[in-house]
Amino acid sequence: MAGLYLSFLFQLFFCLSCPATNPSMLNVHLVPHTHDDVGWLKTVDQYYYGVIVFSDRNNIQHAGVQYILDSVIDQLQKDPARRFIYVETAFFYRWWKQQNQSTQRIVTQLVNEGRLEFINGGWCMSDEATTHYSAVIDQMTLGLRFLNDTFGECGRPRVAWHIDPFGHAREHASIFAQMGYDGFFFGRLDYQDKARRMKTKEMEMLWRASESLTPPLADLFTGVLPNGYNPPEGFCWDQSCDDAPIRDDPDLEDYNVDEIVQKFLNASYRQAGFYKANHIIMTMGSDFQYENANLWYKNMDKLIKYVNALQAKGSKVNVLYSTPSCYLQELNLANLTWPLKTDDFFPYADDAHDFWTGYFTSRPALKLYERLSNSRLQTCNQLEVLGGPKSKSGPFGEGDSDTMKRAMGVAQHHDAVSGTEKQHVAYDYARRLATGWAHCEVLVRNSLAILSGSEAPHVFCENLNISVCPLTESSHKFSMNVYNPLGRTVSWPVRLPVNGSVYSVTDANGRAVDSQVGNVFISLKCTCYIYDMKSSCLLPLLSVRCINNKSVTFDETTGLLSSLTNLETNQTIQLTQNFYWYNASAGNNKESPQTSGAYIFRPNSSDPFVINKTAETQIVTVSSTVQEVTQWFSPWVSQVVRLYEGHRELELEWTVGPVPVADGLGKEVITRLDTDIKSSDYFYTDSNGREVLERRKDYRPTWELKQTEPVAGNYYPINSRAYIKDDKHQLTVVTDRSQGASSLYNGSLEIMLHRRLLYDDYRGVGEPLSEPGDFSDGLVARGRLLLTFTPPDTAADVHRPLAQGMVLQPLLSFQDGTPSANTKLEFSGLQTDLPPAVHLLTLSQWDEDTVLIRLEHQYQAKESKTHSQPVTVNLQKLFSTLDVLGASEMSLGANQWKEDMDRLQWNAEKTSKPLPLSAKDPSPWEVTLNPMEIRTFLLRVRQL
Amino acid sequence: MAGLYLSFLFQLFFCLSCPATNPSMLNVHLVPHTHDDVGWLKTVDQYYYGVIVFSDRNNIQHAGVQYILDSVIDQLQKDPARRFIYVETAFFYRWWKQQNQSTQRIVTQLVNEGRLEFINGGWCMSDEATTHYSAVIDQMTLGLRFLNDTFGECGRPRVAWHIDPFGHAREHASIFAQMGYDGFFFGRLDYQDKARRMKTKEMEMLWRASESLTPPLADLFTGVLPNGYNPPEGFCWDQSCDDAPIRDDPDLEDYNVDEIVQKFLNASYRQAGFYKANHIIMTMGSDFQYENANLWYKNMDKLIKYVNALQAKGSKVNVLYSTPSCYLQELNLANLTWPLKTDDFFPYADDAHDFWTGYFTSRPALKLYERLSNSRLQTCNQLEVLGGPKSKSGPFGEGDSDTMKRAMGVAQHHDAVSGTEKQHVAYDYARRLATGWAHCEVLVRNSLAILSGSEAPHVFCENLNISVCPLTESSHKFSMNVYNPLGRTVSWPVRLPVNGSVYSVTDANGRAVDSQVGNVFISLKCTCYIYDMKSSCLLPLLSVRCINNKSVTFDETTGLLSSLTNLETNQTIQLTQNFYWYNASAGNNKESPQTSGAYIFRPNSSDPFVINKTAETQIVTVSSTVQEVTQWFSPWVSQVVRLYEGHRELELEWTVGPVPVADGLGKEVITRLDTDIKSSDYFYTDSNGREVLERRKDYRPTWELKQTEPVAGNYYPINSRAYIKDDKHQLTVVTDRSQGASSLYNGSLEIMLHRRLLYDDYRGVGEPLSEPGDFSDGLVARGRLLLTFTPPDTAADVHRPLAQGMVLQPLLSFQDGTPSANTKLEFSGLQTDLPPAVHLLTLSQWDEDTVLIRLEHQYQAKESKTHSQPVTVNLQKLFSTLDVLGASEMSLGANQWKEDMDRLQWNAEKTSKPLPLSAKDPSPWEVTLNPMEIRTFLLRVRQL
Repeated sequence: MAGLYLSFLFQLFFCLSCPATNPSMLNVHLVPHTHDDVGWLKTVDQYYYGVIVFSDRNNIQHAGVQYILDSVIDQLQKDPARRFIYVETAFFYRWWKQQNQSTQRIVTQLVNEGRLEFINGGWCMSDEATTHYSAVIDQMTLGLRFLNDTFGECGRPRVAWHIDPFGHAREHASIFAQMGYDGFFFGRLDYQDKARRMKTKEMEMLWRASESLTPPLADLFTGVLPNGYNPPEGFCWDQSCDDAPIRDDPDLEDYNVDEIVQKFLNASYRQAGFYKANHIIMTMGSDFQYENANLWYKNMDKLIKYVNALQAKGSKVNVLYSTPSCYLQELNLANLTWPLKTDDFFPYADDAHDFWTGYFTSRPALKLYERLSNSRLQTCNQLEVLGGPKSKSGPFGEGDSDTMKRAMGVAQHHDAVSGTEKQHVAYDYARRLATGWAHCEVLVRNSLAILSGSEAPHVFCENLNISVCPLTESSHKFSMNVYNPLGRTVSWPVRLPVNGSVYSVTDANGRAVDSQVGNVFISLKCTCYIYDMKSSCLLPLLSVRCINNKSVTFDETTGLLSSLTNLETNQTIQLTQNFYWYNASAGNNKESPQTSGAYIFRPNSSDPFVINKTAETQIVTVSSTVQEVTQWFSPWVSQVVRLYEGHRELELEWTVGPVPVADGLGKEVITRLDTDIKSSDYFYTDSNGREVLERRKDYRPTWELKQTEPVAGNYYPINSRAYIKDDKHQLTVVTDRSQGASSLYNGSLEIMLHRRLLYDDYRGVGEPLSEPGDFSDGLVARGRLLLTFTPPDTAADVHRPLAQGMVLQPLLSFQDGTPSANTKLEFSGLQTDLPPAVHLLTLSQWDEDTVLIRLEHQYQAKESKTHSQPVTVNLQKLFSTLDVLGASEMSLGANQWKEDMDRLQWNAEKTSKPLPLSAKDPSPWEVTLNPMEIRTFLLRVRQL
Repeated sequence: MAGLYLSFLFQLFFCLSCPATNPSMLNVHLVPHTHDDVGWLKTVDQYYYGVIVFSDRNNIQHAGVQYILDSVIDQLQKDPARRFIYVETAFFYRWWKQQNQSTQRIVTQLVNEGRLEFINGGWCMSDEATTHYSAVIDQMTLGLRFLNDTFGECGRPRVAWHIDPFGHAREHASIFAQMGYDGFFFGRLDYQDKARRMKTKEMEMLWRASESLTPPLADLFTGVLPNGYNPPEGFCWDQSCDDAPIRDDPDLEDYNVDEIVQKFLNASYRQAGFYKANHIIMTMGSDFQYENANLWYKNMDKLIKYVNALQAKGSKVNVLYSTPSCYLQELNLANLTWPLKTDDFFPYADDAHDFWTGYFTSRPALKLYERLSNSRLQTCNQLEVLGGPKSKSGPFGEGDSDTMKRAMGVAQHHDAVSGTEKQHVAYDYARRLATGWAHCEVLVRNSLAILSGSEAPHVFCENLNISVCPLTESSHKFSMNVYNPLGRTVSWPVRLPVNGSVYSVTDANGRAVDSQVGNVFISLKCTCYIYDMKSSCLLPLLSVRCINNKSVTFDETTGLLSSLTNLETNQTIQLTQNFYWYNASAGNNKESPQTSGAYIFRPNSSDPFVINKTAETQIVTVSSTVQEVTQWFSPWVSQVVRLYEGHRELELEWTVGPVPVADGLGKEVITRLDTDIKSSDYFYTDSNGREVLERRKDYRPTWELKQTEPVAGNYYPINSRAYIKDDKHQLTVVTDRSQGASSLYNGSLEIMLHRRLLYDDYRGVGEPLSEPGDFSDGLVARGRLLLTFTPPDTAADVHRPLAQGMVLQPLLSFQDGTPSANTKLEFSGLQTDLPPAVHLLTLSQWDEDTVLIRLEHQYQAKESKTHSQPVTVNLQKLFSTLDVLGASEMSLGANQWKEDMDRLQWNAEKTSKPLPLSAKDPSPWEVTLNPMEIRTFLLRVRQL
């Protein structure tokens, strides 16, 4: 036992070995690093291999990650002082599996000795504005697990590292904190914010990233890097850089050691003026650098040698190879007090007219497809657990969820779902998701076969959104299977294309329609609209003006929506909704040459053009289950307004595109809801689909904003919802994908839906955002906004489950003919519905007999009288077909036992806000979730 | 003894270790290589360090040789099958001295195992058109000695490798043969020639490179590389290339192994169709490639693996890492008969209107400075020997000849003296030569102090060519020292600027002027023209028309030369000389967009514009020693015509520039001599200053020429002379530097003197050749043409010594006041003049007690009745102050004992020409030189 104990200590010491510093000097931590986008100008695999791609401007980006890792591993071996950090596991995974044992052993040793350190460690460096927390947690888990499986404790990243994302979400910080990271560094923040922070030495801070979780649960030490993620000017020694190498042979021309050393000392002292400690960090690297690492290390070796040699002559600068975690450790030891940050870092502007708020909406179709894919992946994961081992190798062949996990992993990248990649790369992300789903399809078919006891093949209809499904269109008799990945029963409208006019529809028990959600086998009857009618409560049916002027009205003159009434609460607001477009800047005005592009939103004028002041309306359907009205605004903008029986929300299904650009004007299309809600300058947006932050027009909580873009400078990302409210009314919009939104007028809420632009915006992508990539045609985007209208204090009770239902949609599959006699027509994986506050965030096979589960409290503290309370779940009573033999609680990333989590402690300035308290678990099996808490477990299970 | 013998065999085997090949297959030898210009777009030191230089077009050439060698050495260690060749010792030397012992040991082992092989191995890869053999031999010796000293026998290059020079001189081939090379490969030859050779499988041949030396003394196996020096299309895997990497992970997109393998097999079979053997060579590399060698090797490893894997399925292609010498060894083993080549590879054209004949003249001032520097280096070398060890560390400080040797070494590069480098690089070469001379100056001062016994400081006047010498201009009493580096007495006119009008001039013995050549101390008297009058024979003095219309006449109307008479032989020709300019192509005509530039000569029209039909003439000087007439053609073209007492030649000192280009026309200035010599289409040019080749207008000896550029396509390089002749008359022009020349009309000879151009010629240099690099001003060039007019059969007796005297000029130095009493005023290093046929090519300190000497027979076989005979010299009776204790004959490069030279033997097609026979040495100390033979000895000496 003593030996084991020692060995454990030794291991810990090894992983954390940090270079010696000098307490009486200014210590400059050089952090050699590369920033490897998992797709941007090239696809992730093109980046991996270093395929040359010619862009429109004929530039070449060589960028070969295979060579970067080859080269760095070689160079690290040359000197134990040299260090390197690696970030993107999607790439490291590709590389690792191609290495022979000898190289793998060398790398393991470098990791064990802290010379190669993994930082961040997710599959990618996720975007923060347009990602959903569910997919972010998944992609982090995927990367961290690979590192943990491969390297153990020494492979566990200590520091989160989002050097490139274009603004920073509070929910990301909360996730990182819950994953056990000791700190977080990033490169981009508003230029005004940065200037102020440099002046006041607030470049480093403690970020309190949740108003619901008890500190320090969501506290994260956060540092702003001095030069984005680049080296100081003049010290870039990559193949791709132009800076002078150190020429230290006096026999050759232009010996420059003295000049370079002096320049470095100046840069160090200047930087030290912006930071509190006698330690500063310099990021020595940039995009796809270190492909020939020798250039960097050879010159840095000389820099360190010659700068430190001056210490003998009285210099007080000590420069060393280091890593972010070693730098962080020194800051921690310094025992200083750090400013507290409670809001977020959106929107990001790098100059007065350069607001990166366009990408909140860029590539709306990809953004939707990514979101749908997340839903499918969760279903795939769940069915892998429920179907057992044969789901991966069963009657329909070999299936897996890994391909989809990896595809979703890269899709979270900050140039993927963000919409800021080149067109061919966007296609590649979509292709990967489709391939991932193809692998999942096999798994799902196998699993359904196992669960139903029938090997009749299931057909998936990918194109239901455009009313295409060959099976339902041609078959006279078919069955539909609905798998609901949520932890509770939901009501979900299904719309199928059929060619017949009379259908008989029965549920699993042969009864008509009125059946439970879950695994339902029904046949179709007399209408193509089918509903699961078992909604939890029976609400008065909202109806359309032209039939039943009770809940939503249309203006007879304009055809626009004119009011909204909640019949439950008996409250009404005036509501006008219309579509507009901002004229995208072509960069030809006098203030700035900045254009609107994939990243940047910059309208030429603050007043958008209305598509049409009036809409042509048409009543499409009136039935007991749905009422719908179509509005035509122009040949390229239309909308269907729907009310469903048993649903509280008003559905607006918008269709926008192809956006015309023959007039030479780029267009950014919004819809705007104008109400008489007295919202003043305030509005609310979610952070990565979870907690909601208050926004205020022309205002930032932490600095005196000088507003220079009255529209773009007020846009914020929404991932799941936005709302405006006053004392009595709250209008909440739940979206089906990430978008940009703002409130520019009292009572108004606008959401950007689609963008088609004619110019690149000079942030590197080198293409105008004009999907599908040329000018011959344009992309049609279609989507849904769900409007709920309630008093503020009950709003969350509606929008929380509504938004989760939008994220995790039922999976429909079809079988021709009648199910065979012994087919099991119903199945539920859960013993019973989860409590209303509890969301089943993750259910995924981990190892042969282990399952990863995440249970989430889906309400914020105080937002719901009913639900913002601790809630307890018994882990042993969750599953209908699995016996839970053991449970180990993990960090959120599932790469550390919860009990081993021992994060660095930081002193922050005092906060005046009351801090939430947490409830405890009543027993080992009964776990209590506090508001916004996610608990992660590995369960040892046995199939019953 | 047995052990020693075995060890010797082992060593030999080691150096020559070549990869296994397969006799029943097509063997493809991949030769990984880099081509590292020792200066071109960047200076040699900028290339070494990898300094980024922005060119006019904003292109960047990263090119860092330090990193290339770092990277290659790393990569070679990863797999013993990998091989690399390195060529330019100027770079390797810089790198080697910065390596630690451990790296040096690794490199030595790689060399011993044949994994790193030195090829060519000179200090640079010399230009072949504009270099003088003396400097070429020196630069080769410098590089080969470094390799020999560092690595011994395994470091001795077996193959000469001139992959980039723009045409190939026969003298270079002769030199390589005499240096012991087994073969020679190059990349560039006339496109018509190449097309024919591919068709007839004559890409490889035996080059008989001398008409004087007994075969196989100057026979050299010569191969034309298939793709210049690049890899076959699609197989360039350098950082700087765009070709697809091999993507062999089936899990990633675009797996391309099958496609690439098939493409390689196709390329191999296609290439094999142009060569005789079942071995072919592929050059895998290019300019400054392998800075990140991993990219190349990783992909080549895969290529070899996957191509050879197909052998199991019946493929007959075997691909392997190899080197030129291993490839050559296989060709030798094949025992085939090869075509015989006896002319040279000039001029080089890569397309119909793209003749690389401009660089023969480009940068005339640099070309002269390089030639003068060679003369100074030989003087420096000789005085280092004669002065003994104290010459390097004596009364005037530390001096050395090494700096000048290295400066001359890089100046021989094919983008140095060729004039095809960027302007800033041309300045760098000149600066290096000046620095080299500064080091030599100290050595020379020390040596002269030792030899004269006086430490009074010597002053060198660098600017005598523009009549500037502060000492002679200000001093009332000074002495002049003349050091003659030739092996015999010469007569040499000296012209000094003085301010007084009456001077007393005495020689070493106090007598007036009439004194011997060598170390002469004289004072000046009454005229600023001083001659050493001791010419070997007294010839009738040629005189100028305006004084003495005997030998050269001027036309009274035009002021141009009109006839030339040799009073010795009583023969006269009509001779008109004038200056013209070709209008350089601006690339705007319909045949081709090719412009004239640093490389390319392309006149817009075959008819040059005359500068002026008449010259304004002025008699400048008439004295018993010199008669001179100045001709003014324009403000930027003038000439001084001179006849010296005791000299057979007519001197034309031309001054051209600044060439005006305000008219928007680039100009290529020639002088043309039109005579009534019946030369028909024939003319003669030297090869690197030695043997002379016959040229014929619109004709090539080895293929049916389709002439597409009637002027540029008939230009040839001259390094020391050109002539035209008929049965009775030969007019020879000896030049002071390398130039381009042609004979486009019967009896006519033209020489290009200067060029000023307005466009780049698209061969990479990226600058128009408009010295000094901008349009504000232009360079004035001045030079001398020496005309001799004789019967053909005695012409060599005049032009051979005249040309050597032009190459090795006396060094003048000055001392203020009167020499002190004990000063030794005369000294000769030689016991006596060498025989007329013998030239002292090299006399240079080798080791502490060893001296390198090269004795050269300076006449071709049959060109002189008197001198084209074997001549014998006694090595022990050469020196006046050195005792010769031992002599070892060496290869021409001095890196191998002559007796160890054992070159590969080759079967050639029969020649119809009679082969020269050689005479033998009468005794060990008495060495016999046959025509054109150079013999190289290391002499063990002791200062007397």
